[in-house]
Amino acid sequence: MAAIREEADVSPSGAAAIEDIATRHLVQPWPTSGSIGAEARGLIQSGEGIYVTDHTGRRLIDGPAGMWCVNVGHRRPELAQVLYDQAMDLSYNSPWYTTNAPSAVLAERLAGHAPEGMNHVFYTTGGSSAVETALRFMQFYNNVRGRPEKKLIVSREGAYHGSTYLSASLNGRPRDHDWMDSASQLVLKLSSPNPFRRPSGVSVEAFCDGLVEEFRTLIATTGAERIGAFVAEPIQASGGVIVPPGDYLKRMRALCTEHDILYISDEVVTAFGRLGQVFASDDVFGIKPDMITFAKGVTSGYFPLGGVMIASRLFSDLRQSNHSDAMFAHGLTYSSHPIGCAVALKNLDILEDGLLEQARTISGHFQSRLKALEALPLVGEVRGLGLMACIECVADRVSNNPLTLDLEVGKRIDKHCQEMGLLVRPLINMCVMSPPLTISENQIDEMADILDRSIRLTQDELVREGLWKG
Amino acid sequence: MAAIREEADVSPSGAAAIEDIATRHLVQPWPTSGSIGAEARGLIQSGEGIYVTDHTGRRLIDGPAGMWCVNVGHRRPELAQVLYDQAMDLSYNSPWYTTNAPSAVLAERLAGHAPEGMNHVFYTTGGSSAVETALRFMQFYNNVRGRPEKKLIVSREGAYHGSTYLSASLNGRPRDHDWMDSASQLVLKLSSPNPFRRPSGVSVEAFCDGLVEEFRTLIATTGAERIGAFVAEPIQASGGVIVPPGDYLKRMRALCTEHDILYISDEVVTAFGRLGQVFASDDVFGIKPDMITFAKGVTSGYFPLGGVMIASRLFSDLRQSNHSDAMFAHGLTYSSHPIGCAVALKNLDILEDGLLEQARTISGHFQSRLKALEALPLVGEVRGLGLMACIECVADRVSNNPLTLDLEVGKRIDKHCQEMGLLVRPLINMCVMSPPLTISENQIDEMADILDRSIRLTQDELVREGLWKG
Repeated sequence: MAAIREEADVSPSGAAAIEDIATRHLVQPWPTSGSIGAEARGLIQSGEGIYVTDHTGRRLIDGPAGMWCVNVGHRRPELAQVLYDQAMDLSYNSPWYTTNAPSAVLAERLAGHAPEGMNHVFYTTGGSSAVETALRFMQFYNNVRGRPEKKLIVSREGAYHGSTYLSASLNGRPRDHDWMDSASQLVLKLSSPNPFRRPSGVSVEAFCDGLVEEFRTLIATTGAERIGAFVAEPIQASGGVIVPPGDYLKRMRALCTEHDILYISDEVVTAFGRLGQVFASDDVFGIKPDMITFAKGVTSGYFPLGGVMIASRLFSDLRQSNHSDAMFAHGLTYSSHPIGCAVALKNLDILEDGLLEQARTISGHFQSRLKALEALPLVGEVRGLGLMACIECVADRVSNNPLTLDLEVGKRIDKHCQEMGLLVRPLINMCVMSPPLTISENQIDEMADILDRSIRLTQDELVREGLWKG
Repeated sequence: MAAIREEADVSPSGAAAIEDIATRHLVQPWPTSGSIGAEARGLIQSGEGIYVTDHTGRRLIDGPAGMWCVNVGHRRPELAQVLYDQAMDLSYNSPWYTTNAPSAVLAERLAGHAPEGMNHVFYTTGGSSAVETALRFMQFYNNVRGRPEKKLIVSREGAYHGSTYLSASLNGRPRDHDWMDSASQLVLKLSSPNPFRRPSGVSVEAFCDGLVEEFRTLIATTGAERIGAFVAEPIQASGGVIVPPGDYLKRMRALCTEHDILYISDEVVTAFGRLGQVFASDDVFGIKPDMITFAKGVTSGYFPLGGVMIASRLFSDLRQSNHSDAMFAHGLTYSSHPIGCAVALKNLDILEDGLLEQARTISGHFQSRLKALEALPLVGEVRGLGLMACIECVADRVSNNPLTLDLEVGKRIDKHCQEMGLLVRPLINMCVMSPPLTISENQIDEMADILDRSIRLTQDELVREGLWKG
């Protein structure tokens, strides 16, 4: 360990050295042309529970739980122990021609939590590869079933589904595609089910009717025989925690069933306790998808693992085809990784052993404390469900116009929050909160108080700079 | 641990229970329509050094080192310790707005091994996401540089580059595309540089000239202004360990330089000691690519980590563009994972601390012992470099015609080998060997002896069944 430990010295001078090394050698996600290859980001030294500690020794509440993933909290000795133990048992076996016990046992337990009739899992290394697997399986499924033209994928504005070429083609947020290529000819986009941004004068019910009608029209004009899948996060996460109206998801599911379109529920964020259940599709929203993609919370970020739950009827369809030797030529070196699956089993123990229930219990306090921030004039809406929420800032509350993108008010709020001990995930004009599920009532209060003070400071600052009228 | 340990009981009855669970709940890579969702593969219980142990307690030499990845061997206590220690320090931080020490320190050390001028790394979760990153970066780079039409990707027959939609589009092996969709409009294919399959009567030199000429012609007919990248494994690995002739790679590199085509060297298999060096592109083959993709051996399979080394000049080009705010909208939740990077640092310590040298020393014995198998009439060629090799079986040695695919002679040889204590990676009519780098001379002898006996048994069997003339 000597080499790492020495270099990982996090005294102020050690931190400066690390930042210098990072600047010269490391490229992190979403850099810009102007700074790529010459940029360092703030150094994090350690984690404990809901906190991370930066290089100055400042302890911060991990507001976004990393990237919506550290569900059981940082520094769980039982997860560290599983990493060690499984590595000393079996650290790797090739899933091409062998299997291991943890992946099979985990598959059985996941099937027990998934909607009825969804009994199988294909493991990947994260959300992007889970979505790629689901989409490639849909393509294979329709090729084998003799309908190779049934391949178009319906996604939505505000969606986020990954960062590989095909999965990223489904994304629908600002800046996702400005300078990137995508398989746009394979993808159709519907509107985001965002009630806050519905046309003025339209009721939420009418807005929901319109969204369903939009899908029905798209199917009619495109032809159901050309549409292979509908892909949707139950709650659009990095699109701004968009909780869909009323029975929107059920009605979209019904349209898919009616037109033999596979419904892929992307639960990379919403599964593993974020909404108080292992999977949210059925247990929270009452829908039975054909596939569910997951990642993140399945290992609480301790190990890159993701996967796709697949409804058994799809395999029956394939087995009844005349092409029993057709090969689903898909798989990753790290599919069914024994260490990742062992970590996920222990993580699931923790969730089942009271943490899911605790998350359900505490989410009321979490939502109501954050909702109270709507009293601040900069705040247009606070919305959320379970332990995920978004604070959206607006230029004025009559028009609900967003503040201009360049203003990046989220970053300003984050800066103040960090000074007071809270890490925020700033998203342009929004702050997203999805803390570890282990957060207590007092810690929620602390978080909400810091947000309140930081938004007030930001308001003062924007007025002072003449950027906002107040 | 109770739940896992109980279920992981590997007594014969425990193994049967696990296989039953796997059959009902687990989908592993490359299933067929006829068996998908209803199939179990042989259970592996544990690993130790170059061995794995199956559920019957039988110890097997891990001939392919998992999937070309367990380079430092199974059950390394120092890697298990790093998994534990880093999880207790910092198990996760978001690379979107923070950094960690292990990822920066590893980046610096990798840059020290990479060709001159290649100073940066972008981390992913494996080979597929590394190739996706390299390709998406090429697209971004050409968009920012104002040449959006320069995007076609040149790959080769026999190639394997991944299992996401775009990376898989580059693959060129039998059965890769039979039932799968691909972005074929983005990809151009050249011939595999396989001297064993060159036209009869053509010298290796003339064959190499022809391959280079084929690329030159492709550039001329397509237009260099439409070609963004050439992607190549230095040795095509799962295509059958194709060692390219003479100065083929240097001449392909020169053509790329001449026509401003980015050269992406896919070292997912060849890096981290497989050919005796950390990276093989320059240190073994004398070429300086624009990007190098890696995975597998970087953590010896203990943790899903991959990445792309990127030449600094590409960043200079971007920084000199007029689009300093152009966003490379790409990144994975698990990019720069602190545990993965800590494992890779310790793995690199082991490689640098004598194992690279040991691999270089022992590879002569490995290659010569396997080469001797060419004395067997079923064997058409044994080829390889470093600690990777392939035994290719043929119907007759005059024509070199491959045995029919359905015969799957590789699987027959593997079956005999397993009975004698060796796990083979069978590839249709080929057996691929890439053992852990820790293998000893005696263990190489054991491996070669088992292969010799197994091929003889297979020969007898094929003659007896009237499938081969002998």
